[in-house]
Amino acid sequence: MGAVNKLGEFALIDWMRKSCFCSSGVTKGIGDDTAVLPFSTKEDMLSTTDMSVEGTHFTKGTPPELIGRKALARNLSDIAAMGGTPTYAVISLGLPKTTTTAYVQKIYRGINKLAKQFNVSIVGGDTVKSDKLVINIALLGKVAKGKAVLRSGAKPGDQIFVTGPLGGSFKSGRHLTFTPRLKEAQILMKKFHPAAMIDISDGLAGDLGHILEESKVGAVLDATKIPLHRNVDLKAGLYDGEDFELLFTVRPNDAEKLKQFYRIGAIVKDKNKLYLCGKNDQVILLKTKGFTHF
Amino acid sequence: MGAVNKLGEFALIDWMRKSCFCSSGVTKGIGDDTAVLPFSTKEDMLSTTDMSVEGTHFTKGTPPELIGRKALARNLSDIAAMGGTPTYAVISLGLPKTTTTAYVQKIYRGINKLAKQFNVSIVGGDTVKSDKLVINIALLGKVAKGKAVLRSGAKPGDQIFVTGPLGGSFKSGRHLTFTPRLKEAQILMKKFHPAAMIDISDGLAGDLGHILEESKVGAVLDATKIPLHRNVDLKAGLYDGEDFELLFTVRPNDAEKLKQFYRIGAIVKDKNKLYLCGKNDQVILLKTKGFTHF
Repeated sequence: MGAVNKLGEFALIDWMRKSCFCSSGVTKGIGDDTAVLPFSTKEDMLSTTDMSVEGTHFTKGTPPELIGRKALARNLSDIAAMGGTPTYAVISLGLPKTTTTAYVQKIYRGINKLAKQFNVSIVGGDTVKSDKLVINIALLGKVAKGKAVLRSGAKPGDQIFVTGPLGGSFKSGRHLTFTPRLKEAQILMKKFHPAAMIDISDGLAGDLGHILEESKVGAVLDATKIPLHRNVDLKAGLYDGEDFELLFTVRPNDAEKLKQFYRIGAIVKDKNKLYLCGKNDQVILLKTKGFTHF
Repeated sequence: MGAVNKLGEFALIDWMRKSCFCSSGVTKGIGDDTAVLPFSTKEDMLSTTDMSVEGTHFTKGTPPELIGRKALARNLSDIAAMGGTPTYAVISLGLPKTTTTAYVQKIYRGINKLAKQFNVSIVGGDTVKSDKLVINIALLGKVAKGKAVLRSGAKPGDQIFVTGPLGGSFKSGRHLTFTPRLKEAQILMKKFHPAAMIDISDGLAGDLGHILEESKVGAVLDATKIPLHRNVDLKAGLYDGEDFELLFTVRPNDAEKLKQFYRIGAIVKDKNKLYLCGKNDQVILLKTKGFTHF
């Protein structure tokens, strides 16, 4: 057996999905942005967790407020990607022995400010000793019963959209300061209800790849329509991680009404194939493997 | 401001409790074994999270099945301490680059075996790169509405019990193999409903200290009645961490019927005072500061 970085994170997640114990009451388990769990006659519950580690997701020099902020923002983005509203969070902190109380309080200020903004209650946590700083947030949310937007709902003919420009998130520092697209998700849910949705954490190509795999379809992207941040090239727009915009598909009729977002392509039948159509009408086949965390 | 290990973990938790954003709908937030959240007309939801870090909670040599097992068992113990039943878990893994897939699968086997035993569905997770192995499990549970057993319910006259012998958990390796006391919690809930309850993770004196503080009472322990594991002295029984037995109080009338557990003392009025009554009827005042994680 090889190392995780060779076998690949996604192959490992596939294994977990098949082997983990899961009772029949679970609506959606491992394999989407969040789990979907039974709650009441009117609502489903959403559950997600994200770990951020010093040296991987932030550095020693990252302002502690932003470390805390990002840890919660990543989770909020997952809830947005299901079309949900966040509710409760629990926070685990692994702290080096020499961490000052003031530093920990700054991490919490970053979390709290965002929690207040999106009405998320911080209801518990765990604080342990660790050589490097680690922060894990587990977040719950809610969504109208049966209305959670899965990765598996895309159909040929659907139009593909993103909520904002892409690329250069790490270089620019945007990965620390982005606003999770909860408001945009609510606009979509009220008016159009997306067919499939995901947040862009692994890169546009990689995350679209997840939709293609779960929906058993393919896609054609229009290179001229992909919105890019300033000083970002197409390759970065396709493959950079942690943009945290929403990537979604809607039925063709709905697409006409969606002027406030960026239409970048369409879903086609060819399973797991991702085509890019360029300026000169040349069509190339893209790799769907995006940003990997190993 | 001092380092966390000087100020103390518990002072920091107090600060979090006061400063964290929490909406009015939350029944019990930070400061008990789990949060208590509104769920349905018949049930409350319980939410808890625990982080385990290489070098703190286990070593490089710890069998991976036991690392996974313990990570879930600690959480299950928190749900037991509220009188609840576990339901859903999400798992975050921080993995060194060189971790083999076989090693990760062994961690998951340890988790899965225990999950199946207690009917906990594994519904999601996160896998990230980390210098040292880190595992975080966030667990949900349920309890009959208004019936969660808090640390704050003890009253003078209550009798104090533990579910099993104490001490030497680290030395013996029991901290890796203990059975979370979910069955015992259900026996208690059906027949007696404890007044206050906690699981012993910080040591008997430390965790009884948490009950005393939350309940604004004191306690007298009978040194001759504290059940100890073989080759464990009284000091270890009082202060060793991670026994994961349940420590609870019941009203005097109920105490007579509780033959299967160990009665070790009584609750008294003196706020935050913990007395130990020895063999020769000498009474000493104990420190309630138990095992700390820093």
